[in-house]
Amino acid sequence: MDRATAFVPGHITGFFSVQSAAKPARSGSRGAGVTLTDGVEVTVTPGNGCRLNGEPTSITAVDSVRTRLGVDAAVDATTSLPLGAGFGVSGALALGTALAANRVFGCGKSENELITLAHCAEVEAGTGLGDVVAQARGGLPIRIDPGSPSHGRLDGVAARPQIEYVTFGELSTEEVLAGDTENLSRAGESALSRLLEWPTLDRFMSAAREFADDAELLTAEVADAIAAVDETGGDAAMAMLGNTVFAVGDGLSAAGYDPERCRTDAGGARLRLDE
Amino acid sequence: MDRATAFVPGHITGFFSVQSAAKPARSGSRGAGVTLTDGVEVTVTPGNGCRLNGEPTSITAVDSVRTRLGVDAAVDATTSLPLGAGFGVSGALALGTALAANRVFGCGKSENELITLAHCAEVEAGTGLGDVVAQARGGLPIRIDPGSPSHGRLDGVAARPQIEYVTFGELSTEEVLAGDTENLSRAGESALSRLLEWPTLDRFMSAAREFADDAELLTAEVADAIAAVDETGGDAAMAMLGNTVFAVGDGLSAAGYDPERCRTDAGGARLRLDE
Repeated sequence: MDRATAFVPGHITGFFSVQSAAKPARSGSRGAGVTLTDGVEVTVTPGNGCRLNGEPTSITAVDSVRTRLGVDAAVDATTSLPLGAGFGVSGALALGTALAANRVFGCGKSENELITLAHCAEVEAGTGLGDVVAQARGGLPIRIDPGSPSHGRLDGVAARPQIEYVTFGELSTEEVLAGDTENLSRAGESALSRLLEWPTLDRFMSAAREFADDAELLTAEVADAIAAVDETGGDAAMAMLGNTVFAVGDGLSAAGYDPERCRTDAGGARLRLDE
Repeated sequence: MDRATAFVPGHITGFFSVQSAAKPARSGSRGAGVTLTDGVEVTVTPGNGCRLNGEPTSITAVDSVRTRLGVDAAVDATTSLPLGAGFGVSGALALGTALAANRVFGCGKSENELITLAHCAEVEAGTGLGDVVAQARGGLPIRIDPGSPSHGRLDGVAARPQIEYVTFGELSTEEVLAGDTENLSRAGESALSRLLEWPTLDRFMSAAREFADDAELLTAEVADAIAAVDETGGDAAMAMLGNTVFAVGDGLSAAGYDPERCRTDAGGARLRLDE
């Protein structure tokens, strides 16, 4: 096989706490989010380089996945999702590269091994902590224990809502994660406790709103949008970490915004074509 | 909400070993299989009774799920899959009922809790050991540790082949599981070791073929079909437990059979519609 394509859903984190460990496979985050039918298509062929929407780019986590698999893979990815805005695009690129390269080069890795590769690459690059394992699962993943599939444990909110989102610009994951995350993590743990008590969509959204407030991450644009959606009886929260607001159903359009609209991804990252 | 529908993929087990424990949540099986885009649609409304393809029926695992959730749910299910032929239809009914009833009655259960409910119902009914957790995951699930999501652990073969299948009649899961399963389980453990060594589609199929032989479960019709597919260069094995043969790609039609054809299910059990 000289070409394979994987689809990886976008992932918006609603809240999280940082969970550091000596080994990247044990590091990550606890928290919850929603995966999106808007995602990243990653095509791998033998060769070199990495293109995103046709533009040459360099993504540390993708380089690291190639090195870990020991393959010379050309990566060609397309997405409608904005970068650096809290949609897990770098995690999607890493995981999509792992899934498609395993197929092209016959590496013989299992799904968990490929997820672990991509998770460790992303953690070491400092570009994400929980996107990869969430994107592998799909739905509304709850990250109960951090880390790769051998160490972590996931659950999910049993709902599949339509999602609307608007992005007001970038917010650097690296910068926030490099700063003092103690307050943020305390807020994330509290939000997770509230969700696990009653794991529904409503509770997820309210826990995410509370987290953004408590962790002092709310931007002015996002705060305004959440208030506007709330006034029309809708349910919105902030994407972590991005200057992005997301809402359930048609919450943002009802509040007068012009959002992107998609559905909750049902099944998680997957190869597009196969024998 | 007064109605919800869940889709649960069919699941063909290629090989397994019986893993008994005092608690049903810790019981189950180790092994591997393939989930199918041919599955069961389960619609739940307030009420009573259970219908399958329009016919009133009684399924112990479904009754048990309703009791565990404490709801009066009418279950209306449709499927193109044959019953008692190794496709996990009873597991699909239990899991689909759990997912849809949770939605209709606002039970506030997480995905893992619903999978656990359905798994325990199926184990106690004696109608299956590993279908429910496999059907929840989708793809080609490997059951590494047995039991519900809190205890078990899954991996997956990173492939999504087309599948063809032919059923020659029923085979009672209850009867086989009630007999001496020591030899069968030894063969299942050996097949699992071989797959985990090199977790690819080819290895899954050859391990499944070996298992059917070693466990002395092969029926004459299935043995003939596997041989015929092999002669045309294809790859087939027996569905556990059913008088059913399945093949990768167009293996059965190339060998002159008139099979059903579907794809590997990508994402596992899911609600069909949502807010």
